Amino acid sequence: MRLEKVLKQMKERQMDYLIVCDPSSIEYLIGYKNNPGERMYVLLLSSDGHHTLFMNQLFYLDHDLDVDLVWYCDTDDYVQLLADHIVSPASVGVDKNFPAKFFMPLMSLKDETYFELGSQCVDLVRMVKDEEEQRLMIEASKINDQVIDEVIQICSKGNLSEKEVSQQIEAIYQKYGCSGNSFEPIVAYGKNGADNHHVGDQTMLQPGDSIIIDIGGLFHEYCSDMTRTVFYKDVSQKQKDVYELVLKAQKAAEAMIKPGVKLCDIDKCARDIIAQGGYTVEFNHRLGHFIGRDVHEWGDVSANFDLEVEEGMIFSIEPGVYLQGEFGVRIEDLVLVTKDGCQILNSYCKDLTIIG
Amino acid sequence: MRLEKVLKQMKERQMDYLIVCDPSSIEYLIGYKNNPGERMYVLLLSSDGHHTLFMNQLFYLDHDLDVDLVWYCDTDDYVQLLADHIVSPASVGVDKNFPAKFFMPLMSLKDETYFELGSQCVDLVRMVKDEEEQRLMIEASKINDQVIDEVIQICSKGNLSEKEVSQQIEAIYQKYGCSGNSFEPIVAYGKNGADNHHVGDQTMLQPGDSIIIDIGGLFHEYCSDMTRTVFYKDVSQKQKDVYELVLKAQKAAEAMIKPGVKLCDIDKCARDIIAQGGYTVEFNHRLGHFIGRDVHEWGDVSANFDLEVEEGMIFSIEPGVYLQGEFGVRIEDLVLVTKDGCQILNSYCKDLTIIG
Repeated sequence: MRLEKVLKQMKERQMDYLIVCDPSSIEYLIGYKNNPGERMYVLLLSSDGHHTLFMNQLFYLDHDLDVDLVWYCDTDDYVQLLADHIVSPASVGVDKNFPAKFFMPLMSLKDETYFELGSQCVDLVRMVKDEEEQRLMIEASKINDQVIDEVIQICSKGNLSEKEVSQQIEAIYQKYGCSGNSFEPIVAYGKNGADNHHVGDQTMLQPGDSIIIDIGGLFHEYCSDMTRTVFYKDVSQKQKDVYELVLKAQKAAEAMIKPGVKLCDIDKCARDIIAQGGYTVEFNHRLGHFIGRDVHEWGDVSANFDLEVEEGMIFSIEPGVYLQGEFGVRIEDLVLVTKDGCQILNSYCKDLTIIG
Repeated sequence: MRLEKVLKQMKERQMDYLIVCDPSSIEYLIGYKNNPGERMYVLLLSSDGHHTLFMNQLFYLDHDLDVDLVWYCDTDDYVQLLADHIVSPASVGVDKNFPAKFFMPLMSLKDETYFELGSQCVDLVRMVKDEEEQRLMIEASKINDQVIDEVIQICSKGNLSEKEVSQQIEAIYQKYGCSGNSFEPIVAYGKNGADNHHVGDQTMLQPGDSIIIDIGGLFHEYCSDMTRTVFYKDVSQKQKDVYELVLKAQKAAEAMIKPGVKLCDIDKCARDIIAQGGYTVEFNHRLGHFIGRDVHEWGDVSANFDLEVEEGMIFSIEPGVYLQGEFGVRIEDLVLVTKDGCQILNSYCKDLTIIG
């Protein structure tokens, strides 16, 4: 069913072949999980329905697959093997992450071939989650609500560094049935919160610090992802104003989500509210991203994406304001688009909260 | 100094620019660590000595860098920005991992430009470790000897699944001053050991099982990596024979390492010994890989690499024999090439060992 949808996308683009190398996409399409490291791992989809998986012989196959297999070893010319399976002249879609080390030799082997970026054929299908995927992601976010509550309670004691808190999070996810974190957790105190991707260090909490907690777990191969910002012992008027502004933008964006609305307009809604509050460059990232098997899947809620929202899509809504040298605020939920609106998958409290 | 060595490589190849996108290489060259995720992150080296780093504005810079900076935001046309910094006609080296999503639009913007794979200019420099790097990697492997001893002791109790043992390993590294694992640890019992990249599951130990333990830690940004195979309670004659064969091949390969010897000949030495013992396809991977900031760096000890060994190189020597449905044996050390031989960085016992 998934493969059929991808083939339909290929046909619309008159694409004869599609090179898929993203291990998550390959697993999504044929149900086989593999971690190829630096080795070539390609699912070659053909518009005629005969698909081929190129595997290093040290990868292990524990069940039969519905595709042809080409095994190679480290010393084989595996790019030549891939080229041999493409009958030219042809139009070939290429995975957005296909690395130059395979792509450049392939291009020089196939001069009668037209190459174009092709992974949208898969990504557009992955964007819309089926029933089982929705069920898992709803459950994953419910767990995330419980985990963030535990993390906030740990922070409220005030005696642990960012790093010490971060290191406890994976075990909490495992307690709730996740296999682990879906990404490196972010716990950022005070001015560290102004760095969106701060890596937890030895910093200790000080009264008046904002605390950004951006965490997610991996539940049956599907990711959760949420952010809350709380304050330790005290909050300044400026912090309060920024928090309420970000929250207003976040709620307004969530309120407008329904099938037919454009992703760029959701971004604009939140961005305009934050700009009216006086912050422009301080909100320095897209409003949201798609999520599923990968924590960042293809698709942005940003000015770049004029795609219309569809029922079954799941993405994040996460406006933020970052004041260098002072503090940061980000609030993030995942949302699932429904027939006439959206279901917000995180229900953990978003009211301004002072802990400790 | 490192940059100068890379520029020398570029000049030998008459390369005007080099696109570096590997975050480890960028950190190695300019001392700035970043995790760009899916966003474009490029260090553009120019043969005229003016280098430019392209950064998304949500990446955080905590100190000044000796290169020009081009900041962009999610909605900018960042590939155009990169193209604008390449004065054509020009010969441009491309990082082996430069993804198609950036490379394809760049190629269509720059038709008077000759692109070729270029990361060897950096990789050949990274292959040879300087004094400080050697010191860190020697220390990292000493720690690994201690960690594997603890892991083997944990296994010897016989009451934990592969997964339960694996999950304890990161904390052991941290106890010894590492920031964590350098890769997902492999603990494989019995027939699971025949899958080289087995992911630890609920399997419990049975008397007569081989146990492959392949682990490494990250110490001040440098990786260790070693493998030992031990047996639980009992060992069959076949297991014993295979173990002694792999050990013989491993020791013979290590014994021939010195400057001037070709990497492919080291591989051949081990592979021939294992073939003489009756196993060919059962040793289904390269003999070793280079290692440093990344656990797998560019460079193989395999039939594909006729490069000569140089003083200061560090790589693994890890022959194995994998018998599907039965068991696996792999023995791995890291070695540092010295002026007239090599220093084996792991000193943990390799004699056949029965535990439990």
